[in-house]
This record gives sequence, structure tokens and C-alpha cells, in this order.
Amino acid sequence: MLQLFYAPSTCALATHIALVEVGAAYELVRLSFAAEDQRKPDYLAINPKGRVPALVTEEGVLTETPALLAYVAQRFPAAGLAPLDDPFAFARVQSFNSYLCATLHVAHAHRMRGYRWADEPEAIAAMQRKVPDSVGQCFATVERELAGPWVMGDRYTICDPYLFTLAQWMEADGVDTGRFPKVIAHRARCAARPAVRQALAEESDAA
Amino acid sequence: MLQLFYAPSTCALATHIALVEVGAAYELVRLSFAAEDQRKPDYLAINPKGRVPALVTEEGVLTETPALLAYVAQRFPAAGLAPLDDPFAFARVQSFNSYLCATLHVAHAHRMRGYRWADEPEAIAAMQRKVPDSVGQCFATVERELAGPWVMGDRYTICDPYLFTLAQWMEADGVDTGRFPKVIAHRARCAARPAVRQALAEESDAA
Repeated sequence: MLQLFYAPSTCALATHIALVEVGAAYELVRLSFAAEDQRKPDYLAINPKGRVPALVTEEGVLTETPALLAYVAQRFPAAGLAPLDDPFAFARVQSFNSYLCATLHVAHAHRMRGYRWADEPEAIAAMQRKVPDSVGQCFATVERELAGPWVMGDRYTICDPYLFTLAQWMEADGVDTGRFPKVIAHRARCAARPAVRQALAEESDAA
Repeated sequence: MLQLFYAPSTCALATHIALVEVGAAYELVRLSFAAEDQRKPDYLAINPKGRVPALVTEEGVLTETPALLAYVAQRFPAAGLAPLDDPFAFARVQSFNSYLCATLHVAHAHRMRGYRWADEPEAIAAMQRKVPDSVGQCFATVERELAGPWVMGDRYTICDPYLFTLAQWMEADGVDTGRFPKVIAHRARCAARPAVRQALAEESDAA
């Protein structure tokens, strides 16, 4: 059985939702960031990078959300979560998810994880002040690219739970959500899906 | 024919090398970052994000290096640049490339693109001071994961030109290369490949 190591309110939710969507058998293992579980030896033996998510499969451990989402789609192809056999369409899915991972999530991370990129408290505070602007710029890109009703158009793909997950953080990041009606409508559309409700409930029940 | 929009000494080199490796027919279009070509209307019409690389295909434009590399592998499967039909093995390839994109390249970008994440010159200078440490931490992860002789072991994949490309920047980032003998040996091994020599020569000839 697949095991997903996650922490609440992190990007691990995207993979969690995808696992529910495809009907996978999985076990959740919850880490507490407050207790710094992700830096303890037991977890570093699973993911030496000390981050979530990590997906333990029969063949070994996988990390990095874009890779996990494509894995879930490819492992459970009947669910149709990615256009796996169309190189161009699959590349568009991967491009969107790579942008979320490497640009949008990274901009967001400067609010609470600035210590990764500077030591001085003043510099870390300066990064925090820029987050509404930098994350807002990323959502402007997403708003432009979002086809609707789902990210790629009529077909729900692995882009949707990932965008939904990162869009949870807009208000806390100080982003003016009024500028992004398509993103907000997409977030509401995702929130109404049974798989999304189930994943959120599972993360909440474990609290 | 595929068209690759690139700028010299950027991560676009990874896709360029992959195109040579698979024997694709392609045309290079060079942008000058010094002239800020990437922010001009002609290029923003191709890639509104104003970054390189962009790959123009018969079906449309693709961006984001991890997506482009998987696209090249999938579009030219005979070259065997990715284990496309093995979900776990393909996810390992994608995980490695996603880490390079979202963690290693991002750490590096704090040396010259700090303005993305803070406005104050002092904060930008603080980010620059941290780069040898933050990029060094990323290469420690790569050193641990690098199987050898290639990233994934005996098989040369789309991970190799990407790591080679980012490893070009170690010295300028102030990384102590003596700590990473496997990365340095891998860099030399890649540099000796005809496809890598051809790609570097093409970017140099255009100067």
C-alpha cells in the first residue's frame, strides 16, 4: 500500500487529493511541523531532504510534488488525470505544475521560510513584505493561463488539486483575491469535489 | 521544426543539449539578457512569463525546463532519454529534475535575481551572501543522490544535461567544489559528450 507522509496545510495536500481522486489504497502518516518531525532521524531516513510530501511505494520513496502527481496519474491511468500519451498535452500539464512548484510556491515560501535564502532578520522581514506582490504576480500568470472550468479546460487533471492547494494560501499571503476571479472560482469548484472534501476531512480528523 | 528560444549561460542549455542528443531538427533563437530581449513585446507574445527557455512546437509554445526535458524524451522515444513506461523510474527522473528546478536553481537565482523576492538593496545583498551556503546545501543533496556514472545510474537520461547545466555555475556561486567529487566527475563526463560539445559550440558561435 502507498504511504503518504504529509503535514497539514502544506503542498502535500495536492498528492493526497490525487490519491483520493484515483481511488488508490493509501495510508496517511502525519508529521507535525510544530514538533519539527520533518527534521527527526526517523523521517530523514525516509526523506533526507526533510520536507513533505514523501510517498512510500513498493519500489521505494518518491518526493517532489510535480513528480508525485505525474506518478499517481501514470500509476492509475484509468482515472485519466493526465494526457499521458500526448507529449504536447502532457508537457502543458507538467509546465503548469512546474511553474506552481518552482515559482509560485517559492514566492510563497519567502513569507515563512526566508531563512533558507538569507541569515539577517532584516532581510527575512524584507522578503515577507514582498510576498503579497511576488505571489500576486504568480497568480496573475495563473489567472491568464487558467482555461476553465479546470486548469487545462474541460478535463480535470493533476494541475487542479495542485492549484487548489496553493490557492489556499492567498489570503494569508496578502494577495488581493479580487484581482483573480478565475482562480477563486476554480478554488470553489475544486472545494466542492468529493475527493477534495474527503482529503481535507482526513487531514482535519487526524488533528 | 522546433524552435528553442534561449539565452547563453542559462538553464535553456539543458533543453538544447537534449535536442542534440535525440537528433531533433531544431532552430535556435538567441535572446540577449543584457539587452533585456526577454522583456520585449515580441518575446512576451511567445512567452508572457518573460523567461527562457521557450520551445515553439507545431502545436504551440512550451515552457519550464522539467516539462521541456520530458517532452523531448517523450517526443523522441527512440533515444531512450527517460524510462517513460515505468511510473516509478520516470517519477525518480522527474523528482530529480524538479529538485534542480525548484530548489537548486532557485537558491542560485538569489545571487543575481534577488529583486524577485525583496525590494531593499540590503536584503538583496544578504541573499547574495547566503548563496554559497544555500547552493552548497543543494549540491550536497545531489552528491548523495547521484548514482553514477550518470544521475540515474548506467543510463543517461534527461537528468544529466540538466545537472550539467546547473553545475556550470558552482564556481561563480562560491560553492566549494572539493566537497562534491561525484558532481564534478559527472560534469566532466557530460562535457566530453559530443552532444554537449555541439550545444556549447552553437551557443558560443552565435555570440
